[in-house]
Amino acid sequence: MPALPAFPDAVTERTLTLQTRLCVGLDPRAEVYRDTAHLRLHTLDVLEATAPFAACVKPQLAFFEALGLPGFTLLEEVCALARTLGLPVILDGKRGDIGSTAEAYARAWLGGPHAGDALTVNPFLGFATLTPFVEAARANGGGIFVLVKTSNPDQSDVQGSGVSERVAVEVARLNTEEVGAEAEAGTYASVGAVVGATHARDLATFRALMPHALLLLPGLGAQGAAAADLAPAFHAGGTGALASASRGVQYAAGSGAAGLDVAASVAAAKRFRDELNGALEL
Amino acid sequence: MPALPAFPDAVTERTLTLQTRLCVGLDPRAEVYRDTAHLRLHTLDVLEATAPFAACVKPQLAFFEALGLPGFTLLEEVCALARTLGLPVILDGKRGDIGSTAEAYARAWLGGPHAGDALTVNPFLGFATLTPFVEAARANGGGIFVLVKTSNPDQSDVQGSGVSERVAVEVARLNTEEVGAEAEAGTYASVGAVVGATHARDLATFRALMPHALLLLPGLGAQGAAAADLAPAFHAGGTGALASASRGVQYAAGSGAAGLDVAASVAAAKRFRDELNGALEL
Repeated sequence: MPALPAFPDAVTERTLTLQTRLCVGLDPRAEVYRDTAHLRLHTLDVLEATAPFAACVKPQLAFFEALGLPGFTLLEEVCALARTLGLPVILDGKRGDIGSTAEAYARAWLGGPHAGDALTVNPFLGFATLTPFVEAARANGGGIFVLVKTSNPDQSDVQGSGVSERVAVEVARLNTEEVGAEAEAGTYASVGAVVGATHARDLATFRALMPHALLLLPGLGAQGAAAADLAPAFHAGGTGALASASRGVQYAAGSGAAGLDVAASVAAAKRFRDELNGALEL
Repeated sequence: MPALPAFPDAVTERTLTLQTRLCVGLDPRAEVYRDTAHLRLHTLDVLEATAPFAACVKPQLAFFEALGLPGFTLLEEVCALARTLGLPVILDGKRGDIGSTAEAYARAWLGGPHAGDALTVNPFLGFATLTPFVEAARANGGGIFVLVKTSNPDQSDVQGSGVSERVAVEVARLNTEEVGAEAEAGTYASVGAVVGATHARDLATFRALMPHALLLLPGLGAQGAAAADLAPAFHAGGTGALASASRGVQYAAGSGAAGLDVAASVAAAKRFRDELNGALEL
């Protein structure tokens, strides 16, 4: 397999080449399928069929873990297929722990047998606990996305009172350490940030706070965020952010077995892509 | 295999029967071993040999994930052996996510093929995101341990400014919902809390804030916490808390291959058990 460029460059290059800011989320829900073989086929089909409309793909680790050992085998297949399709992989695991445990997570998901190109990381244990993830991302040409302000309404229980803003300032500091204080906005470094697409009014603030961070914006579709509201998350030219839809793509035709319609997934991915470009007037 | 009683009762019963408040942490570090077979044998040996001195066992998921697929197979073996030994299993995964994703994690680790009796949970995404974990624990006779104040110094970046105390109040609310407002302190419910053994001066406060929570106290040994300081985390009779040591037991004879001495692990587990009982004047 040809080596991909470093993660932030690979995503930006694909965004500009294909003119898409959509991240396709894969959340394979066991209860929708007859069995694991059925789940596997549909998940790989959705990935392959929607790839032309996607800047990257985001497998949600929880759904693979819920399948047990076959889930990890499938995750390896998903990562391998994505690589063949030229799609950077963001593993959505929201991992976080201290010291040598964080190192083990970083080794597992940014360098190990199921490694992706990037991993979502939970900062609850403190800023120094991000270091092993940042170092692994930098060493492997990968990336991390630190949870800054998640898409759900009750995030404010813990992320309120300035916590999200303090995490954002730390993300910016890590990136400046990497690209230098003179780098222009629009130069992207290894440390991205998760900011819910549902917080449209905050996007400009977080964009400004983290000039060198790729922003991952979950919540498009099923969670109610609208592509039309997301322009403030992007830099000029439409780079710097990825809006993510999961159920709204994989199960675009509806929940339950009746929703397993790959053509509907393709149509949804194409529609999200076009709505995002429309919001950016591209 | 005989069914164990519900997790909080199983841990309390074992604590009182064996007179031990020690949780043996398993952090199998790949770099210490010749290969995965060697890692597997030593990890299972440490578990079996230290079980008589342990109230429960805590496999750290990061180290199993770092091994790839063989790691998940080993995790199943560890859980099965622990069950044979009568040891409740706390899976240290610090999982946390929203809605149906949290449900998938709860299904994976509190009911799935590698399920433990309890799981550590990260509250960063908000209090409502704890619900699927709490429901799964209650339905399966299991438990969760919510991160309240972790053992590392830089926890205050995010957990400071009253965040830890607010999480503790929510843990208490969930437990009161389960056991009723009239239950006596020392009646334990499904929702435990992680409070670093390194924060000796805060233990009395968190013990009082969460009268029905089992407290999991990591940081004994390698992280510098002393058993002698932990008495305030316990209720009268020495129930309600579990002090956890990982490297200090598994690699008691030292780091590197030279530290793989199961007799030293047994001696360390026995010493931690005795020191904890000494601190409680038991």
